[in-house]
Parts: sequence; C-alpha cells; structure tokens
Amino acid sequence: METITVCGFGGSLRKASYNRALLRAAVELAPEGMQVALFDRLGELPLYNPDVEAAGLPEPVAALKAALGAADAILVATPEYNYGIPAPLKNAIDWASRPPTGSPLNRKPALIIGCSPGIGGTIRAQLAVRQAFVFTQTHALPGPEFILPRCADKFDGELRLVDEKTRTFLAERLAALGEYTVRLRGGPESGARNPELSRAHA
Amino acid sequence: METITVCGFGGSLRKASYNRALLRAAVELAPEGMQVALFDRLGELPLYNPDVEAAGLPEPVAALKAALGAADAILVATPEYNYGIPAPLKNAIDWASRPPTGSPLNRKPALIIGCSPGIGGTIRAQLAVRQAFVFTQTHALPGPEFILPRCADKFDGELRLVDEKTRTFLAERLAALGEYTVRLRGGPESGARNPELSRAHA
Amino acid sequence: METITVCGFGGSLRKASYNRALLRAAVELAPEGMQVALFDRLGELPLYNPDVEAAGLPEPVAALKAALGAADAILVATPEYNYGIPAPLKNAIDWASRPPTGSPLNRKPALIIGCSPGIGGTIRAQLAVRQAFVFTQTHALPGPEFILPRCADKFDGELRLVDEKTRTFLAERLAALGEYTVRLRGGPESGARNPELSRAHA
Amino acid sequence: METITVCGFGGSLRKASYNRALLRAAVELAPEGMQVALFDRLGELPLYNPDVEAAGLPEPVAALKAALGAADAILVATPEYNYGIPAPLKNAIDWASRPPTGSPLNRKPALIIGCSPGIGGTIRAQLAVRQAFVFTQTHALPGPEFILPRCADKFDGELRLVDEKTRTFLAERLAALGEYTVRLRGGPESGARNPELSRAHA
Repeated sequence: METITVCGFGGSLRKASYNRALLRAAVELAPEGMQVALFDRLGELPLYNPDVEAAGLPEPVAALKAALGAADAILVATPEYNYGIPAPLKNAIDWASRPPTGSPLNRKPALIIGCSPGIGGTIRAQLAVRQAFVFTQTHALPGPEFILPRCADKFDGELRLVDEKTRTFLAERLAALGEYTVRLRGGPESGARNPELSRAHA
Repeated sequence: METITVCGFGGSLRKASYNRALLRAAVELAPEGMQVALFDRLGELPLYNPDVEAAGLPEPVAALKAALGAADAILVATPEYNYGIPAPLKNAIDWASRPPTGSPLNRKPALIIGCSPGIGGTIRAQLAVRQAFVFTQTHALPGPEFILPRCADKFDGELRLVDEKTRTFLAERLAALGEYTVRLRGGPESGARNPELSRAHA
Repeated sequence: METITVCGFGGSLRKASYNRALLRAAVELAPEGMQVALFDRLGELPLYNPDVEAAGLPEPVAALKAALGAADAILVATPEYNYGIPAPLKNAIDWASRPPTGSPLNRKPALIIGCSPGIGGTIRAQLAVRQAFVFTQTHALPGPEFILPRCADKFDGELRLVDEKTRTFLAERLAALGEYTVRLRGGPESGARNPELSRAHA
Repeated sequence: METITVCGFGGSLRKASYNRALLRAAVELAPEGMQVALFDRLGELPLYNPDVEAAGLPEPVAALKAALGAADAILVATPEYNYGIPAPLKNAIDWASRPPTGSPLNRKPALIIGCSPGIGGTIRAQLAVRQAFVFTQTHALPGPEFILPRCADKFDGELRLVDEKTRTFLAERLAALGEYTVRLRGGPESGARNPELSRAHA
C-alpha cells in the first residue's frame, strides 16, 4: 500500500467519550502505510454563520480545512444525540464544505464509525453523516458499517479498546479505507453540476 | 381557540436569512389567540459538551430552556446545510433535551417549516428535525409540510413574505398547530421507557 | 376510554415472523376498550402500478382500504430489510394512500413497532414508515419507540411474546395510542395544501 | 474506457413513467464503451417472502439476479411514492440481495437518478435507495445527485428527454459511473463482517 494520511475527528467534545477512544484505537490499528492524524479542535469552532464566514475564516476553521486538505482520506467517529448527528460534527462539516478555498471533503474517501452504550450503536447518526457526504461529494465506504451498540464493556477502565473481535473489525475497515483510497486517488475532479441547483444562502 | 404561546426559533444565524424572515412572517400570521415569541439567541449557545453541562448550564442554555418551558408549542424554521440540519439548530435541540431540568421539548406540539433558494426546499433538513423530535417525544405535525423551494421571489427587498399563496399556507399551518395544541394539552406524561434503552453518554 | 378499533398489519410475509408474533401479542395486550384487528392479506396485493389502479382497484386493495377506513387507528409492525422498509409494507401504504376513495391513512393516529434478531431492532425501517406517514398525514406517535433488537429470546418456542418487560412496554405503547386517538378524534380535515405541490405521476 | 455493462432498472411500473423515459435516455447517452441494458421485469417479481424463497427462486427473480450478476455497474431510476422508495424497486433490491447465490449488488458501483413532476425531484426516494445500498455494500456514486423536479417540460410528447442541459448532466453522470467502475474493478471481496450482526430473519 502507498502511504496514506487520514484525518480523523469525532462528534463528541466529552473528554471521556467512547468515540474519542475509538479514534485513538484507530490510530493504533491503522495498517502499515496508513497514518491517522486526529484533529481534536472541533470544540474551538464557532457555530457556522455565513456572516462570520464573509468577514474572514476564524483560525480554527482554517486549521480544520488545512488538516482535511492535507489528508488523503477521512475518518469520522460519531456518537448519536437525539437520533441524529451531534452539532459539533455537523458544524465542522458545514464549515469545511464552504468556499473560498474549495471543499477539502470533495472526492475524499471516508470511513464512518461509531459506538454507543445504548442499543442503537449510532445507526442514525452515521446515516446523517453519510447524507452530508452525498452533498459534499465525499466517497463514504458502504457497509459493513462499524456500528457498536452496548459498547461499554468493549473498553477497559482507561478507555482502551480491548475487545479482540472489535479490534479486528476496526482494523479491517481501516484497511478497506486504505484500499479504496488508492483506487480513487488521482481521480478527475467532477466538473458536473446539477443544472437545477442554486447555491445561494437560505 | 384558547390562548396559545409558541416559541419560534430558526436554524440560520445569518442576519439576512430567508428562514428568519419566515419566522417574522409567522409572528404576523399567527391566528387569533396564538402568540409566537421568537428566541433569537441560538448563536450564543456554546457547542454542546457534556463536560460543560456537568459544570453548570451556561446562561443562554438556561434561557432557551426557560423560553421553551414557558411555551405551549414550538415552531422551527430551518434552512438546509449539506443535506442536513444546521449545526446551530441541532445544538439547540441537544442542549434543550438534556437534564437536569427535564426536557421542555417533551410532549410539545411542533410545526416545522423551511425555505431555500434552491430546489430542495429544506426537505432533508426538516426530516432530520422530525427524527430528533421522535426521540425528544415532541409531537411534530405531519404533512402537508411547509416546504418552499426557489423562495427568493416570495419575499420583497426587505425580506417580507409577500407571496399570497405562501402566506395563506403558512397561516393554515399555524392554525393547524393551534388546533393540535389544544387537543394535546394536559395530556399525561408518558412514564413509559423502552426497557432496552440506556441513556449513558457515548 | 371510548371504544377504539385498531387495524394492525405487518411488513413480513413469513409465517414464522417475529413481527407477526408481535402483532398477535398486541391483540392480546390491547387495553380495555381497544380492539386490534389484524389485516393479514398484504401478500395478496399486486405490486403498486398506476396503470392497474386506473383499470379498477384489485379486490385485496379494496379490502385493505376498507379495513383501514373502518379503523380509528393504525398499528404497524415491521422488520427491516436492507436498512429499509420491506416491500410488502411499502406496497400496502402506497396502495392505501391513493384515490379514488380518499386515503384512509389521512389523520389516523398510528403506532409503529418492530423487532429483529440482530442489533438494529428495526430502527431504520421504522423511520421509513414514519417518513411515509408524514406524507399521508398520519399521526405517528413519537417516542419512546418500540424498538427491540436481539428479540429471539423474548419469544417462546411457539412465538408467544413472553418477556415481561417487553409485554409491559408494548401494553404501555398501545395505551398511549388509545389516549392519542381519543384526543385527535373528530378533528377537522386539513384542507390545506402546499401550493408548490403537484400530484401528477412520475 | 474499457467496455462496461450497466444493468438499469426503475421504480415505476407505469408505462408512461418519466423515470422509464429517463432510463431510455440513459441507454442513448451512455459514453463510448458503456452499454446500458434495461431490466424491465420488476412487475413480474412476487412480493418478497422468505418462505417462497426457501421453496426455490421464482424465475423472474433468478433472471434479475442473473442480469445484475452479468453487469459491471448498476443504474437505478426511481420516482418517489409517499416520501419513499416505490415498492417494486425495494422488492427487487430485497430479492437481489439474498442468498443462495450471493448478492449481485455487492461491491457494484451504482448511479441513482430520478425525476418527478412535483417539487421534490425524488430527493427522499434516492436517499432510501442509498441507504439500502449501504447494507448491500453497493458503491453508490456520491453527488452531484441527478435530481429533477418539475420534470414534465424536460420531455417531449413521446417522452423523449429533450432538455439539453438535462441531457448533458445525465451524460456526465453516466461518464462518472464509468470512471468509477474502472477504478473499483477487480477489488477484493470484503471478507469483513460486523461481529455484532446477526442475519437471522425477523
């Protein structure tokens, strides 16, 4: 495998988040030739506001766009809040997708993962991330989805992912992301636009 | 109709937002006996963070919960960002839904509206709000949905809603919200819980 | 509670379906004053085809519309196929929603339930049913959702629902459906229509 | 471009369907080296029933699986019924995804398109198809989506797609499908499975 850099970020701002722990496990479980770098500053982004954007990109937004721009692929780990995507994660996607610098999400391969202590396993939140990635033209890997309900006992007391089956499955999905990234690398930019679309603000 | 108070808020922080303009039209078009009060401070809420929450509710969050708690019903006007719910709106819902004071969204009737200059008309964003409201046990009115694509020419230069058909339809939906609110008023709290559910953090 | 009749149907045509078993449990667990009648002929409906419809309603379709029309409320029990709604269920909803007789789904209260032997518990299928019910203007109860993953051991060898917590929760949800039905009964027909909508065929 | 065969099918059984017309346009607009073959027998499939399946695949199902199996890529054109996927299309996907012969949807690239005479343009139906394709591990192209609201005047009286901008956009999307198919060709089968998943029937 060629060297692949992956920008990883998560939907929870909580220090003891299981999904942050999942990201740390991904750093460790990345296959040879893949480096996962975590962007851990989503909490510093202001809420997306077109008026703020027009006045100049806030520094943390520029840093996010730079981190994504420098990466070959994207890794998102998300909890689920109120049957949907957490605001910090949607906020990061909304800022990243915007001009003037072009969207660093465009045509990037992406792996979406998530875990929850409850029964849903982040099913709905992952679907919401996928839906955003249809618009941003990000190539989210299809299934098998990394969905992990009742996750508490998969981690140890220091939030290390210790369940062997789960570790193996995460490693497999990261390898699939690497394989997909190599295949899509160097692809032509899509110049196509839906002629029905307007990009004006709502 | 009995007197009904409605708390209205929107998903866009942009000053010249069409959806803010829609909320102002709703204030004006509310049927007799209904008062729509706008909560316009979503931009002041910090990004939802369970650690911050544990340290004490930020003042704008407490204000949001108070405004929702005092209302009989909810009005949400949302744009669509990246095929989904804008972060400021999801953020408000996530804060509002949380303890310790109980969720002021619980069992409240709600009307979801939205408009966009493009072709989608906020279809996907409205579905995402609905999905959150399933979890928060908020009674979102079913269709006919207030979806308004290519909205630019429905407003005048000062962002007043001037299209007569659209005004009539919005007035009808607000009247339906009023009727629904009266019917659901005083309902028993649902004590039921899915025995499979855990509410621990992810 | 006044007498309430509920029309129940499910998404699986399989004889040994857990969701059929759930419907049978619902018949038994309905609160006093509520009668759940199962419509078990979804497998006889032809695939929805506007050309067939134009030539005259097939008898099983007319029977479905009559059963729904005679009911005060609706109960749907659905498995999940390929992350979505099973075709037999969507087919029934599509036929039921159509002219010439008016949609018997319109303004009816509805409870959606589902179970699966796997981890999802029919989360996505239930959301798809809800989404259809937004269009049909059916009042689906919001949460707490009846979602039941890993359901196999909740039933006995003869597919009777034997888990006590699950039985209690199902009984509670049926009672909530009853309460909701009484509140919505006799409501005015919504004459409102989105002026942007066309109902022509695609 | 290498020779690529595409299996195309649609969600409407109506003879005068705009989405059938879109499929015919796709046959004509396919780039050099791509052949789009339409599978037009979805109306012959019985409603999916695991008991029927266990008794032996009905002939039209076997024909569908053979057509998909022989293709390099998939093209789906869907209308939207009741805010969701039409039953004939979901039925085809559900049959195709099943054993014993392995799913011919697995790892196939796919383009999803749709049009409607109304305002939605099949937004929600396309999302439902995407969601199914996450499960079937089908590589649906991300945006720009081919969404076409108010489509009636894009066709002539004989349902030929005559709008030039729309023809160009459809040709571009087919070319993108071709490029994607070449890139993904010969990829390794994913042997990975979510260890939390069960495939038993519900």
